[in-house]
Amino acid sequence: MTTEAKSSSRERLLEAAAALSYRDGVNIGVDALCKAAGVSKRSMYQMFESKGALLAASLEEHASAYVTTLLPAADDNRPPRERILHVFAQAESQAVSPDFQGCRYLVAQIELKDPDHPASRVAHRVKENLTAFFRTEAERGGANDPDLLARQLILVFDGASARAGIKADTPTGLLAPTVAVLLDAADMR
Amino acid sequence: MTTEAKSSSRERLLEAAAALSYRDGVNIGVDALCKAAGVSKRSMYQMFESKGALLAASLEEHASAYVTTLLPAADDNRPPRERILHVFAQAESQAVSPDFQGCRYLVAQIELKDPDHPASRVAHRVKENLTAFFRTEAERGGANDPDLLARQLILVFDGASARAGIKADTPTGLLAPTVAVLLDAADMR
Repeated sequence: MTTEAKSSSRERLLEAAAALSYRDGVNIGVDALCKAAGVSKRSMYQMFESKGALLAASLEEHASAYVTTLLPAADDNRPPRERILHVFAQAESQAVSPDFQGCRYLVAQIELKDPDHPASRVAHRVKENLTAFFRTEAERGGANDPDLLARQLILVFDGASARAGIKADTPTGLLAPTVAVLLDAADMR
Repeated sequence: MTTEAKSSSRERLLEAAAALSYRDGVNIGVDALCKAAGVSKRSMYQMFESKGALLAASLEEHASAYVTTLLPAADDNRPPRERILHVFAQAESQAVSPDFQGCRYLVAQIELKDPDHPASRVAHRVKENLTAFFRTEAERGGANDPDLLARQLILVFDGASARAGIKADTPTGLLAPTVAVLLDAADMR
Protein backbone atom coordinates (compact mmCIF):
# COMPACT_ATOMS: atom_id res chain seq x y z
CA MET A 1 0.00 0.00 0.00
CA THR A 2 1.30 3.47 -0.85
CA THR A 3 1.71 6.01 1.94
CA GLU A 4 -1.14 7.99 0.44
CA ALA A 5 -3.50 5.00 0.29
CA LYS A 6 -2.58 4.13 3.86
CA SER A 7 -3.34 7.62 5.11
CA SER A 8 -6.68 7.63 3.32
CA SER A 9 -7.61 4.19 4.76
CA ARG A 10 -6.66 5.49 8.16
CA GLU A 11 -8.86 8.56 7.74
CA ARG A 12 -11.78 6.44 6.58
CA LEU A 13 -11.43 4.15 9.58
CA LEU A 14 -11.33 7.12 11.96
CA GLU A 15 -14.41 8.59 10.28
CA ALA A 16 -16.29 5.31 10.42
CA ALA A 17 -15.38 4.77 14.08
CA ALA A 18 -16.54 8.28 14.98
CA ALA A 19 -19.81 8.02 13.07
CA LEU A 20 -20.81 4.45 13.90
CA SER A 21 -19.75 4.39 17.55
CA TYR A 22 -21.79 7.55 18.05
CA ARG A 23 -24.83 6.28 16.21
CA ASP A 24 -24.81 2.68 17.45
CA GLY A 25 -22.62 2.67 20.53
CA VAL A 26 -19.04 1.74 21.33
CA ASN A 27 -19.87 -1.97 21.02
CA ILE A 28 -20.06 -1.60 17.25
CA GLY A 29 -18.17 -4.54 15.74
CA VAL A 30 -14.84 -4.47 13.92
CA ASP A 31 -16.48 -6.02 10.85
CA ALA A 32 -19.01 -3.21 10.61
CA LEU A 33 -16.30 -0.58 11.02
CA CYS A 34 -14.07 -2.09 8.36
CA LYS A 35 -16.99 -2.54 5.99
CA ALA A 36 -18.10 1.09 6.41
CA ALA A 37 -14.52 2.28 5.86
CA GLY A 38 -13.91 -0.07 2.92
CA VAL A 39 -10.75 -1.36 4.63
CA SER A 40 -9.80 -4.98 5.28
CA LYS A 41 -9.52 -6.20 8.87
CA ARG A 42 -5.91 -7.05 8.19
CA SER A 43 -5.16 -3.46 7.15
CA MET A 44 -7.05 -2.14 10.14
CA TYR A 45 -4.97 -4.21 12.56
CA GLN A 46 -1.81 -3.00 10.81
CA MET A 47 -2.81 0.57 11.63
CA PHE A 48 -4.50 0.15 15.01
CA GLU A 49 -3.60 -2.46 17.58
CA SER A 50 -7.23 -2.95 18.62
CA LYS A 51 -10.74 -1.64 18.14
CA GLY A 52 -10.25 0.22 21.41
CA ALA A 53 -7.18 1.98 20.02
CA LEU A 54 -9.13 2.94 16.88
CA LEU A 55 -11.94 4.33 19.00
CA ALA A 56 -9.50 6.29 21.14
CA ALA A 57 -7.83 7.73 18.03
CA SER A 58 -11.19 8.72 16.53
CA LEU A 59 -12.19 10.57 19.72
CA GLU A 60 -8.80 12.25 19.78
CA GLU A 61 -9.12 13.36 16.16
CA HIS A 62 -12.57 14.78 16.81
CA ALA A 63 -11.42 16.80 19.80
CA SER A 64 -10.20 19.89 17.97
CA ALA A 65 -13.47 20.26 16.02
CA TYR A 66 -15.36 19.77 19.30
CA VAL A 67 -13.40 22.50 21.03
CA THR A 68 -13.62 24.88 18.04
CA THR A 69 -17.39 24.47 17.84
CA LEU A 70 -18.03 24.99 21.54
CA LEU A 71 -15.46 27.50 22.74
CA PRO A 72 -15.31 31.21 21.89
CA ALA A 73 -12.20 32.55 20.13
CA ALA A 74 -9.37 33.01 22.62
CA ASP A 75 -9.14 36.73 21.80
CA ASP A 76 -12.79 37.73 21.43
CA ASN A 77 -12.49 40.24 24.28
CA ARG A 78 -15.93 39.46 25.61
CA PRO A 79 -16.50 39.34 29.38
CA PRO A 80 -15.97 35.90 31.00
CA ARG A 81 -19.69 35.53 31.68
CA GLU A 82 -20.50 35.92 27.99
CA ARG A 83 -17.73 33.54 27.02
CA ILE A 84 -19.28 30.89 29.26
CA LEU A 85 -22.77 31.56 27.90
CA HIS A 86 -21.34 31.17 24.38
CA VAL A 87 -20.47 27.53 25.14
CA PHE A 88 -24.00 26.77 26.29
CA ALA A 89 -25.56 28.55 23.31
CA GLN A 90 -23.42 26.36 21.04
CA ALA A 91 -24.37 23.25 23.01
CA GLU A 92 -28.02 24.18 22.68
CA SER A 93 -27.83 24.56 18.92
CA GLN A 94 -26.06 21.19 18.59
CA ALA A 95 -28.68 19.47 20.71
CA VAL A 96 -31.60 20.36 18.46
CA SER A 97 -30.21 18.27 15.60
CA PRO A 98 -32.31 15.09 15.17
CA ASP A 99 -29.10 13.00 15.11
CA PHE A 100 -27.97 14.37 18.46
CA GLN A 101 -27.47 11.57 21.02
CA GLY A 102 -25.60 13.54 23.67
CA CYS A 103 -22.00 14.70 23.98
CA ARG A 104 -19.91 11.93 22.40
CA TYR A 105 -17.25 12.25 25.11
CA LEU A 106 -19.80 11.67 27.86
CA VAL A 107 -21.60 8.87 26.05
CA ALA A 108 -18.39 6.98 25.22
CA GLN A 109 -17.36 6.97 28.88
CA ILE A 110 -20.79 5.81 30.03
CA GLU A 111 -20.81 2.98 27.51
CA LEU A 112 -17.23 1.85 28.05
CA LYS A 113 -17.74 1.55 31.82
CA ASP A 114 -13.99 1.53 32.31
CA PRO A 115 -12.15 4.76 33.16
CA ASP A 116 -8.87 3.06 32.20
CA HIS A 117 -9.94 2.21 28.65
CA PRO A 118 -7.78 4.24 26.21
CA ALA A 119 -10.89 5.84 24.68
CA SER A 120 -12.26 6.72 28.15
CA ARG A 121 -8.98 8.43 28.94
CA VAL A 122 -9.17 10.54 25.79
CA ALA A 123 -12.81 11.42 26.47
CA HIS A 124 -12.08 12.24 30.09
CA ARG A 125 -9.24 14.57 29.09
CA VAL A 126 -11.35 16.42 26.52
CA LYS A 127 -14.02 17.11 29.14
CA GLU A 128 -11.43 18.08 31.74
CA ASN A 129 -10.21 20.70 29.27
CA LEU A 130 -13.74 22.06 28.97
CA THR A 131 -14.03 22.15 32.77
CA ALA A 132 -10.68 23.99 32.89
CA PHE A 133 -12.03 26.58 30.45
CA PHE A 134 -15.01 27.16 32.77
CA ARG A 135 -12.68 27.45 35.76
CA THR A 136 -10.41 29.97 34.04
CA GLU A 137 -13.35 32.14 32.98
CA ALA A 138 -14.86 31.82 36.47
CA GLU A 139 -11.61 33.11 37.97
CA ARG A 140 -11.36 35.93 35.44
CA GLY A 141 -14.99 36.88 36.16
CA GLY A 142 -14.43 37.07 39.90
CA ALA A 143 -16.59 34.07 40.85
CA ASN A 144 -16.68 33.57 44.60
CA ASP A 145 -15.79 29.87 44.22
CA PRO A 146 -14.39 29.25 40.71
CA ASP A 147 -13.81 25.57 41.32
CA LEU A 148 -17.39 24.96 42.46
CA LEU A 149 -18.79 27.03 39.58
CA ALA A 150 -16.74 25.07 37.03
CA ARG A 151 -18.01 21.77 38.48
CA GLN A 152 -21.58 23.06 38.37
CA LEU A 153 -21.25 24.20 34.77
CA ILE A 154 -19.85 20.92 33.47
CA LEU A 155 -22.53 19.05 35.45
CA VAL A 156 -25.22 21.13 33.76
CA PHE A 157 -23.49 20.73 30.39
CA ASP A 158 -23.47 16.94 30.72
CA GLY A 159 -26.94 16.69 32.24
CA ALA A 160 -28.52 18.77 29.49
CA SER A 161 -26.62 16.90 26.79
CA ALA A 162 -27.59 13.49 28.17
CA ARG A 163 -31.25 14.42 28.50
CA ALA A 164 -31.41 15.99 25.03
CA GLY A 165 -29.64 12.91 23.63
CA ILE A 166 -32.33 10.54 24.93
CA LYS A 167 -35.09 13.02 23.90
CA ALA A 168 -36.21 13.37 27.53
CA ASP A 169 -36.00 17.15 27.32
CA THR A 170 -34.63 19.93 25.16
CA PRO A 171 -32.17 22.61 26.30
CA THR A 172 -34.49 25.33 24.96
CA GLY A 173 -35.77 27.54 27.75
CA LEU A 174 -33.83 25.43 30.27
CA LEU A 175 -30.11 25.66 29.73
CA ALA A 176 -29.70 29.45 29.53
CA PRO A 177 -31.79 30.26 32.65
CA THR A 178 -30.11 27.48 34.63
CA VAL A 179 -26.61 28.68 33.77
CA ALA A 180 -27.64 32.29 34.51
CA VAL A 181 -28.81 31.29 38.00
CA LEU A 182 -25.48 29.58 38.71
CA LEU A 183 -23.44 32.51 37.36
CA ASP A 184 -25.48 34.96 39.44
CA ALA A 185 -25.13 32.87 42.59
CA ALA A 186 -21.36 32.87 42.05
CA ASP A 187 -21.35 36.68 41.67
CA MET A 188 -19.90 36.34 38.17
CA ARG A 189 -19.38 39.55 36.30
CA MET B 1 -41.85 -27.02 34.80
CA THR B 2 -43.90 -26.38 37.94
CA THR B 3 -45.41 -22.92 38.45
CA GLU B 4 -43.01 -22.41 41.34
CA ALA B 5 -39.94 -23.35 39.30
CA LYS B 6 -41.14 -21.09 36.51
CA SER B 7 -41.54 -18.13 38.83
CA SER B 8 -38.09 -18.69 40.31
CA SER B 9 -36.49 -18.92 36.81
CA ARG B 10 -38.28 -15.74 35.90
CA GLU B 11 -36.99 -13.98 39.01
CA ARG B 12 -33.45 -15.16 38.35
CA LEU B 13 -33.61 -13.91 34.76
CA LEU B 14 -34.89 -10.52 35.91
CA GLU B 15 -32.12 -10.32 38.52
CA ALA B 16 -29.44 -11.30 35.99
CA ALA B 17 -30.73 -8.81 33.44
CA ALA B 18 -30.75 -6.02 36.03
CA ALA B 19 -27.27 -6.83 37.34
CA LEU B 20 -25.46 -7.61 34.09
CA SER B 21 -27.02 -4.92 31.91
CA TYR B 22 -26.04 -2.38 34.56
CA ARG B 23 -22.52 -3.70 34.96
CA ASP B 24 -21.73 -4.45 31.31
CA GLY B 25 -24.29 -2.48 29.31
CA VAL B 26 -27.54 -3.30 27.55
CA ASN B 27 -25.67 -5.13 24.78
CA ILE B 28 -25.01 -8.01 27.15
CA GLY B 29 -25.78 -11.25 25.26
CA VAL B 30 -28.69 -13.62 25.81
CA ASP B 31 -26.21 -16.47 26.44
CA ALA B 32 -24.54 -14.57 29.28
CA LEU B 33 -27.90 -13.69 30.82
CA CYS B 34 -29.19 -17.25 30.67
CA LYS B 35 -25.94 -18.62 32.04
CA ALA B 36 -25.96 -16.19 34.97
CA ALA B 37 -29.59 -17.04 35.72
CA GLY B 38 -29.06 -20.79 35.27
CA VAL B 39 -31.95 -20.89 32.80
CA SER B 40 -31.97 -22.40 29.30
CA LYS B 41 -32.47 -20.13 26.31
CA ARG B 42 -35.56 -22.13 25.42
CA SER B 43 -37.08 -21.40 28.85
CA MET B 44 -36.11 -17.78 28.59
CA TYR B 45 -37.89 -17.36 25.27
CA GLN B 46 -40.95 -19.10 26.72
CA MET B 47 -41.10 -16.38 29.39
CA PHE B 48 -39.92 -13.32 27.45
CA GLU B 49 -40.46 -12.74 23.76
CA SER B 50 -37.04 -11.12 23.34
CA LYS B 51 -34.00 -9.88 25.22
CA GLY B 52 -35.48 -6.41 24.92
CA ALA B 53 -38.65 -7.55 26.65
CA LEU B 54 -36.60 -9.14 29.45
CA LEU B 55 -34.63 -5.93 29.87
CA ALA B 56 -37.82 -3.86 29.96
CA ALA B 57 -39.32 -6.19 32.58
CA SER B 58 -36.18 -6.02 34.73
CA LEU B 59 -36.23 -2.19 34.67
CA GLU B 60 -39.93 -2.25 35.51
CA GLU B 61 -39.38 -4.61 38.43
CA HIS B 62 -36.59 -2.42 39.78
CA ALA B 63 -38.70 0.72 39.67
CA SER B 64 -40.42 0.37 43.03
CA ALA B 65 -37.12 -0.14 44.88
CA TYR B 66 -35.70 2.85 42.99
CA VAL B 67 -38.59 5.07 44.02
CA THR B 68 -38.57 3.83 47.63
CA THR B 69 -34.84 4.51 47.96
CA LEU B 70 -34.95 7.99 46.48
CA LEU B 71 -38.27 9.51 47.52
CA PRO B 72 -39.32 10.56 51.01
CA ALA B 73 -42.36 8.90 52.59
CA ALA B 74 -45.56 10.41 51.19
CA ASP B 75 -46.69 11.49 54.67
CA ASP B 76 -43.45 12.67 56.25
CA ASN B 77 -44.88 16.18 56.74
CA ARG B 78 -41.59 17.86 55.89
CA PRO B 79 -41.59 21.08 53.85
CA PRO B 80 -41.39 20.58 50.05
CA ARG B 81 -37.87 22.00 49.98
CA GLU B 82 -36.64 19.36 52.42
CA ARG B 83 -38.45 16.62 50.54
CA ILE B 84 -36.60 17.61 47.38
CA LEU B 85 -33.27 17.79 49.21
CA HIS B 86 -33.96 14.29 50.55
CA VAL B 87 -33.91 12.89 47.00
CA PHE B 88 -30.52 14.46 46.32
CA ALA B 89 -29.08 13.29 49.63
CA GLN B 90 -30.15 9.75 48.72
CA ALA B 91 -28.69 10.12 45.23
CA GLU B 92 -25.43 11.33 46.75
CA SER B 93 -25.15 8.33 49.06
CA GLN B 94 -25.83 5.92 46.19
CA ALA B 95 -23.20 7.58 44.01
CA VAL B 96 -20.34 6.96 46.42
CA SER B 97 -20.65 3.18 45.99
CA PRO B 98 -17.69 1.85 43.94
CA ASP B 99 -20.15 -0.11 41.76
CA PHE B 100 -22.11 3.00 40.90
CA GLN B 101 -22.22 3.62 37.15
CA GLY B 102 -24.95 6.25 37.03
CA CYS B 103 -28.73 6.06 37.27
CA ARG B 104 -29.70 2.83 35.51
CA TYR B 105 -32.72 4.49 33.90
CA LEU B 106 -30.57 7.18 32.33
CA VAL B 107 -27.81 4.81 31.25
CA ALA B 108 -30.21 2.31 29.66
CA GLN B 109 -31.76 5.04 27.51
CA ILE B 110 -28.34 6.38 26.47
CA GLU B 111 -27.15 2.92 25.50
CA LEU B 112 -30.32 1.80 23.71
CA LYS B 113 -30.35 4.92 21.50
CA ASP B 114 -33.96 4.27 20.66
CA PRO B 115 -36.73 6.05 22.57
CA ASP B 116 -39.22 3.51 21.20
CA HIS B 117 -37.42 0.46 22.58
CA PRO B 118 -39.67 -1.16 25.24
CA ALA B 119 -36.92 -0.77 27.86
CA SER B 120 -36.39 2.90 26.92
CA ARG B 121 -40.10 3.49 27.40
CA VAL B 122 -40.03 1.97 30.89
CA ALA B 123 -36.92 3.97 31.81
CA HIS B 124 -38.40 7.17 30.41
CA ARG B 125 -41.59 6.69 32.44
CA VAL B 126 -39.69 6.06 35.68
CA LYS B 127 -37.75 9.30 35.25
CA GLU B 128 -40.89 11.21 34.23
CA ASN B 129 -42.39 10.12 37.56
CA LEU B 130 -39.36 11.51 39.38
CA THR B 131 -39.70 14.78 37.44
CA ALA B 132 -43.41 14.84 38.38
CA PHE B 133 -42.46 14.47 42.05
CA PHE B 134 -40.15 17.50 41.71
CA ARG B 135 -42.90 19.48 39.99
CA THR B 136 -45.50 18.66 42.67
CA GLU B 137 -43.15 19.65 45.47
CA ALA B 138 -42.15 22.80 43.56
CA GLU B 139 -45.82 23.78 43.31
CA ARG B 140 -46.48 23.00 46.97
CA GLY B 141 -43.41 25.05 47.93
CA GLY B 142 -44.54 28.07 45.96
CA ALA B 143 -41.81 27.99 43.31
CA ASN B 144 -42.17 30.88 40.89
CA ASP B 145 -41.93 28.52 37.90
CA PRO B 146 -42.56 24.92 39.06
CA ASP B 147 -42.17 23.45 35.61
CA LEU B 148 -38.78 25.09 35.03
CA LEU B 149 -37.58 24.11 38.51
CA ALA B 150 -38.60 20.48 37.95
CA ARG B 151 -36.71 20.41 34.64
CA GLN B 152 -33.66 21.95 36.33
CA LEU B 153 -33.73 19.43 39.16
CA ILE B 154 -33.95 16.37 36.93
CA LEU B 155 -31.20 17.84 34.73
CA VAL B 156 -28.96 18.20 37.79
CA PHE B 157 -29.97 14.75 39.01
CA ASP B 158 -29.00 13.15 35.69
CA GLY B 159 -25.87 15.25 35.21
CA ALA B 160 -24.52 14.42 38.66
CA SER B 161 -25.38 10.75 38.28
CA ALA B 162 -23.74 10.50 34.86
CA ARG B 163 -20.57 12.23 36.03
CA ALA B 164 -20.33 10.20 39.21
CA GLY B 165 -20.94 7.04 37.17
CA ILE B 166 -17.94 7.69 34.92
CA LYS B 167 -15.83 8.82 37.93
CA ALA B 168 -15.42 12.30 36.45
CA ASP B 169 -16.64 13.92 39.66
CA THR B 170 -18.38 13.10 42.90
CA PRO B 171 -21.63 14.70 44.11
CA THR B 172 -19.98 15.56 47.44
CA GLY B 173 -19.81 19.31 47.96
CA LEU B 174 -21.44 19.82 44.56
CA LEU B 175 -24.97 18.44 44.45
CA ALA B 176 -26.36 20.03 47.64
CA PRO B 177 -25.07 23.56 46.94
CA THR B 178 -26.21 23.39 43.31
CA VAL B 179 -29.72 22.29 44.24
CA ALA B 180 -29.87 24.95 46.97
CA VAL B 181 -29.01 27.68 44.44
CA LEU B 182 -31.81 26.51 42.13
CA LEU B 183 -34.35 26.26 44.96
CA ASP B 184 -33.41 29.74 46.19
CA ALA B 185 -33.64 31.23 42.70
CA ALA B 186 -37.16 29.72 42.41
CA ASP B 187 -38.15 31.28 45.76
CA MET B 188 -38.90 27.82 47.16
CA ARG B 189 -39.99 27.70 50.75
